[in-house]
Amino acid sequence: MNKFHEQLLHQHQHLWNAILNHPFLKKTAEGNIEDKTFKTWMRQDYIFVREAIPFMAVLLAKAPVAMRSMFIQIITGLEKELELFRKNAEAHGVNLETMEAAPTCHAYIQFLMNVAYNNSFEEGFTVLYTAEKAYLDSWMAVKENLKGESPWQQFIDNWTSEAFQQYVDWLAATLDELAEGKPEQDLTKMEQLFKLTARYEYLFWEMADKAEEWAV
Amino acid sequence: MNKFHEQLLHQHQHLWNAILNHPFLKKTAEGNIEDKTFKTWMRQDYIFVREAIPFMAVLLAKAPVAMRSMFIQIITGLEKELELFRKNAEAHGVNLETMEAAPTCHAYIQFLMNVAYNNSFEEGFTVLYTAEKAYLDSWMAVKENLKGESPWQQFIDNWTSEAFQQYVDWLAATLDELAEGKPEQDLTKMEQLFKLTARYEYLFWEMADKAEEWAV
Amino acid sequence: MNKFHEQLLHQHQHLWNAILNHPFLKKTAEGNIEDKTFKTWMRQDYIFVREAIPFMAVLLAKAPVAMRSMFIQIITGLEKELELFRKNAEAHGVNLETMEAAPTCHAYIQFLMNVAYNNSFEEGFTVLYTAEKAYLDSWMAVKENLKGESPWQQFIDNWTSEAFQQYVDWLAATLDELAEGKPEQDLTKMEQLFKLTARYEYLFWEMADKAEEWAV
Amino acid sequence: MNKFHEQLLHQHQHLWNAILNHPFLKKTAEGNIEDKTFKTWMRQDYIFVREAIPFMAVLLAKAPVAMRSMFIQIITGLEKELELFRKNAEAHGVNLETMEAAPTCHAYIQFLMNVAYNNSFEEGFTVLYTAEKAYLDSWMAVKENLKGESPWQQFIDNWTSEAFQQYVDWLAATLDELAEGKPEQDLTKMEQLFKLTARYEYLFWEMADKAEEWAV
Repeated sequence: MNKFHEQLLHQHQHLWNAILNHPFLKKTAEGNIEDKTFKTWMRQDYIFVREAIPFMAVLLAKAPVAMRSMFIQIITGLEKELELFRKNAEAHGVNLETMEAAPTCHAYIQFLMNVAYNNSFEEGFTVLYTAEKAYLDSWMAVKENLKGESPWQQFIDNWTSEAFQQYVDWLAATLDELAEGKPEQDLTKMEQLFKLTARYEYLFWEMADKAEEWAV
Repeated sequence: MNKFHEQLLHQHQHLWNAILNHPFLKKTAEGNIEDKTFKTWMRQDYIFVREAIPFMAVLLAKAPVAMRSMFIQIITGLEKELELFRKNAEAHGVNLETMEAAPTCHAYIQFLMNVAYNNSFEEGFTVLYTAEKAYLDSWMAVKENLKGESPWQQFIDNWTSEAFQQYVDWLAATLDELAEGKPEQDLTKMEQLFKLTARYEYLFWEMADKAEEWAV
Repeated sequence: MNKFHEQLLHQHQHLWNAILNHPFLKKTAEGNIEDKTFKTWMRQDYIFVREAIPFMAVLLAKAPVAMRSMFIQIITGLEKELELFRKNAEAHGVNLETMEAAPTCHAYIQFLMNVAYNNSFEEGFTVLYTAEKAYLDSWMAVKENLKGESPWQQFIDNWTSEAFQQYVDWLAATLDELAEGKPEQDLTKMEQLFKLTARYEYLFWEMADKAEEWAV
Repeated sequence: MNKFHEQLLHQHQHLWNAILNHPFLKKTAEGNIEDKTFKTWMRQDYIFVREAIPFMAVLLAKAPVAMRSMFIQIITGLEKELELFRKNAEAHGVNLETMEAAPTCHAYIQFLMNVAYNNSFEEGFTVLYTAEKAYLDSWMAVKENLKGESPWQQFIDNWTSEAFQQYVDWLAATLDELAEGKPEQDLTKMEQLFKLTARYEYLFWEMADKAEEWAV
């Protein structure tokens, strides 16, 4: 039988394909994404990565003792990722600090935090896996279809690196362990959170591509 | 000097007016809102009211001892409100239970929960005040402009009732007390949450009016 | 095979017997408990019941939708229980409001809240079941051994009433359902919380009996 | 006027003196503490430091953006402190992993977690300051009265180091900033948490000195 994380990906492959085929990623790979569009993403994703730290922190608080060191490493990794954004922002003349979260970015962060606080650790972990797996697969899709060097190469390299792949492998293996032996209703709750996270991931590219703003 | 809740409303009157003048409310008042549109709202707002219970519960957990009874009353009131939805749904042939939260409804709920868990009680209370005040003023606007009896009269009556007005008055007075003497930076955090809540309120009407759905 | 709640009681019957045979309960049944001692308990348990409301509120926030009404009823029931304390306090000349929580009472409340926030709903529910079951059995033990009418009869009646028994039956049945199909490691976590709760229950009687105070 | 952290220490100097003059610390300084007693502390404090990580993690989740890096450093520091325990445990033939938290250690941890989750960031921060300040002052008192090299020198050195002093200075200065301009009732809540934390600190030495165990 398939592993739990494989079941999730299989069950929602329609969603997953929609993410990986999003115009934002295609244009980034083909090298014809507008500077303005990519910069919008950069500014929003900077906020998202920054606000992923409190999310990870609540997961750390609920994590089994043996997993805590790993979460501390992940949080430290997010701090380094913020550095990557700041370096690239400077290089491309982007101001990261004046941006407010667009509706989808804001909503996605609220979702992460609510799940971390209100749900079980296993459920929170499912969201974490889904979000990181979506990053890995999305940027892998970009890398594979890449026409020449990209001005945004460092982002592509970051989420397709050996280290990031190994991290996502660990997340998948750990998710499988957490799911092991769980009754159907627990797995269903995890599956629903996988679906919601994937939906937010899709909307995040959409937000960047359409330069989404608050209606009022 | 103005009371704190008045300052908030004044500072964001542009946002507030946008809410009160939303086409959804205008059409409801004029009696030309499509059945389908109103029913979409009904199904989404049923979910929203239902999920407001956990939000209130976390606020109750953090509330000063003297305020707990009031929160228990509020939660009991939400249960009665759900009854109102079920009764009207039956009368109008609407199925409430098969609906999933649309993106804006989902996002707004995540926001409520995150604020309740992650922020101070005062900040959570600000969101509560804003949401209830928006309901009161929105339905008051409908009532004032109402052309004849509405098929949705019970909803209009519910959020314009004497009891609901007194409840919102209590929220306003309590918010003013909670804000009293607070340093500027605390008030700013509360004000930003007022703004965000008002934005979500606007988007909620928008969601109903446009029959918003998940993109994937 | 035994039901999960029966397994817990069986596995920790040594602890459970220690609770039911505590001198505080024996003296209360025999009618020779010192007024001062019982009043100490009354003042501490008033605080405990009061602070059980935030505990229940966080559980309500995490509860499955179908269980929410039950939690709202429980919370409403705690409010009535506080009324019982206030009535009896007045009748016996006890001042409830000037008391601070003794160390064990304080610790037990912190434990409830931490579990409610940090653990899964199932784990929080286990603590709830254990605490209420300990109350039922403790006061049942008093009732069965009662020599004549007690000056504290209303407390005995409260936690041995038909309604309270049915409530604890519901808790037991629900706990069994929540445990159903869970893997061993999940059940072990629940069992450890049962044990800790029972230990705190024992210490609570101890605290009242010894008039425990803060060392400094 | 005195700074807020000075006011707290002054207002509760009776409590603070009780901590600093606890027999456990005196005997450690004089070199006549029983090995068994010190090892009991070591095993309990290992648990306490380990469980301080989830406490810090929830504070990190609620911390202002500008303070997050500092909290990540603190958490990393706690991991190093656990290493210090493990090294000393090995050197002194102490088994850290088989120990369960004694009642006071358990209670203190529950208190940290409840405050982190249920209270405002400022209130949680007050508890953090108090606990760390108590460690600094306690071990400083040991160091100042030390008769010759101690077998437990590495613990003494750890919490009297330049780095640890600077960290506690930062906590004090940050607490003062957080308290600045707050209304009296907010400061009172912080002061009550200072008092409770100091009481738990005192009881922690007491627990180690008396080899406290669960009654049942």
